[in-house]
Amino acid sequence: MTLIVQKYGGTSVANIERIKNVAARAIATHRAGNRVVVAVSAMAGETDRLVALVEGITHTYSRREYDVVVSAGEQVSIGLLAIAIEAQGCKAKSYLGWQVRFMTDSSFSKARIQEVEGEKIHRDLQAGYIVVVAGFQGIDNEGSVTTLGRGGSDTSAVALAAALKADRCDIYTDVDGVYTTDPRIEPKARKLDQISYDEMLEMASLGAKVLQTRSVELAKKYSVPVRVLSSLEEGTGTLLTEENATMEQVLVSGITYSKNEAKITVVGVPDRPGVAAAVFGALSGANINVDMIIQNVSASGETDLTFTVPKSDFRQALGVLEGSIGKIGAREIRGNSEIAKISAIGVGMRSHSGVAQKMFDALSRESINIQMISTSEIKISVVLDEKYTELAVRTLHDAFDLGKESGDHITR
Amino acid sequence: MTLIVQKYGGTSVANIERIKNVAARAIATHRAGNRVVVAVSAMAGETDRLVALVEGITHTYSRREYDVVVSAGEQVSIGLLAIAIEAQGCKAKSYLGWQVRFMTDSSFSKARIQEVEGEKIHRDLQAGYIVVVAGFQGIDNEGSVTTLGRGGSDTSAVALAAALKADRCDIYTDVDGVYTTDPRIEPKARKLDQISYDEMLEMASLGAKVLQTRSVELAKKYSVPVRVLSSLEEGTGTLLTEENATMEQVLVSGITYSKNEAKITVVGVPDRPGVAAAVFGALSGANINVDMIIQNVSASGETDLTFTVPKSDFRQALGVLEGSIGKIGAREIRGNSEIAKISAIGVGMRSHSGVAQKMFDALSRESINIQMISTSEIKISVVLDEKYTELAVRTLHDAFDLGKESGDHITR
Repeated sequence: MTLIVQKYGGTSVANIERIKNVAARAIATHRAGNRVVVAVSAMAGETDRLVALVEGITHTYSRREYDVVVSAGEQVSIGLLAIAIEAQGCKAKSYLGWQVRFMTDSSFSKARIQEVEGEKIHRDLQAGYIVVVAGFQGIDNEGSVTTLGRGGSDTSAVALAAALKADRCDIYTDVDGVYTTDPRIEPKARKLDQISYDEMLEMASLGAKVLQTRSVELAKKYSVPVRVLSSLEEGTGTLLTEENATMEQVLVSGITYSKNEAKITVVGVPDRPGVAAAVFGALSGANINVDMIIQNVSASGETDLTFTVPKSDFRQALGVLEGSIGKIGAREIRGNSEIAKISAIGVGMRSHSGVAQKMFDALSRESINIQMISTSEIKISVVLDEKYTELAVRTLHDAFDLGKESGDHITR
Repeated sequence: MTLIVQKYGGTSVANIERIKNVAARAIATHRAGNRVVVAVSAMAGETDRLVALVEGITHTYSRREYDVVVSAGEQVSIGLLAIAIEAQGCKAKSYLGWQVRFMTDSSFSKARIQEVEGEKIHRDLQAGYIVVVAGFQGIDNEGSVTTLGRGGSDTSAVALAAALKADRCDIYTDVDGVYTTDPRIEPKARKLDQISYDEMLEMASLGAKVLQTRSVELAKKYSVPVRVLSSLEEGTGTLLTEENATMEQVLVSGITYSKNEAKITVVGVPDRPGVAAAVFGALSGANINVDMIIQNVSASGETDLTFTVPKSDFRQALGVLEGSIGKIGAREIRGNSEIAKISAIGVGMRSHSGVAQKMFDALSRESINIQMISTSEIKISVVLDEKYTELAVRTLHDAFDLGKESGDHITR
């Protein structure tokens, strides 16, 4: 008998009508002969409401208590969903994180899952129940409530699927799958039938908002087949799976973009050991994460150091660096927040060369200047002027033939 | 070191400002050299909101799942209160029912407490924390969430006080204590400094809305000194305690009224064994509770049976009885929902006679007709026409000299 974990996000359970729809969908899967476990988020807006209550008291709260407050949202939705399932004639039982021993570390608000106990759930499934589990929450070894961070319900669902050795984890969302790029920018964007974990990981961390990155990491680690599909319309969605031969036949599977970064250049630093440490030490001391880093080849004993930071930390990062400009020995700090990062992702890059060249050529034909380049085994990212975002996405989508069904390399 | 359990209801934590006030009050008690445990309800209106969500799906829901949903309200308020206490400079830690092993039976929505584990709380108190515990909720042996029924937080607080062997349980509410009668009806009503558990039990079950009846039963069982006092103004409130000599010197401690009942008379039933069983069997089969029962002395081989039922069950009760009128062998079913039950309560009745006579005389002087009478060791209840409620309350309050400070029997 097939065991399927379904995950529904906040918009899918935003009100009573939608909760009834989710119940109907879970029951349909159950009646089709499957065992069904449902992981569910808080009703849309509820977590924000709870966060606002906390922020109304103070901005420097205990993370342990914060997690107690915000995890209440999922408690409401699991109970309501179980009731809705029963009202439609199927047996249902809800579980909070602690009730299925959803063990995490004690990093409140961003806890990492350590173990999930599947026994109780298996017993209920055996007895014909649809089991509803609260997403987003767990407990630590002390028995305190923890949460996994915003979007954590995706991760909960995949962890459940791994622990239960489920045949599949279906993540229902408001889009019908993973696209070759954002269809709002490129109408020719095509839904992928299949994508590898590694590609999805890059996509998620490079701007695609479909899945929480950690959920993909977990799916890869435990080889959980994950499907991303729409809770509003029928369809087969996109399947995340191990890399396979057909995937490697294409160069690029998708193009992502992100406008969430800003660029900083530290101009005229002495080209000697310890300078990079001084710069990035100052930033990490202020809890600012640095992403792409480029250091120019030095000719004059002086060099420039360019890197990107999250746009939300841009002002603070400039302040920190201005403050330590003397210590670093730099001439000047320059910043630019009007940039975008465009990435081409594909496992095919592992076995094919020429992808970077093709990318640079295409951008150059449109006279788009590349400010920074960063590569990994399966992706190439370039930073460019923000105003070229849409043009660059469409240009690359076209250059790699992503709109064409003919490629057909991604059918199963 | 004195250990005090404080309980705050929904109106006391209705918004952020009030939660801050509760925090300040708990801290003041803590800084005065006491160990403080706070039991807290959901923010006012929150439980109603959650119930409405459930009712929006179906009216025949699983009680287990209902309890999962409605117990979320307390989860929010304990976290917020702990955060508010910490923001004001004191250490605080919140606990949900399951975290302090608040064990109950499995009667979802009206679970009865079996045991509470005090160890963890004692350890935190020792370490200087103010401990905040969710009222209203517990867990059963299966590890399912249970709730104690509306108003259950009073009971939670008393149970905590009993388990922790607290020196006192202070129930903060929107009135400043227990009164000789409802001050909205009789302005001369006087706050009692002290009242016995038994009297409070009768008061609570006969109409006074200050405390949940079960919390008083529990306080009596474990001899927990309970104080009822206002969360809005300073004052010493009313102390619930063991019966003592001074209490017995007064006849009556308070007058209560209830308009929540209706009267039904089964006219002309054969005066033979089995008739009462047939009547009340029919009602209990429909889950209708019967309160006062009177059967007239029979002369003609026929008798009348009169009793009261909750007003909310009145129509249904009439229907059930009309339906089985043939089986019962009755001539007629008569009903009247415009009645009130007025009660005089006092442990002094145990040792003094003449209380009933004094009550009947006083009502008779006002030409108020008594329809039914019911007595126990420490209370006398009469049923009368609803329109006389206020007059009867004032008349009896006066007859037993309850407005006079002079009695002074209740000072400590």
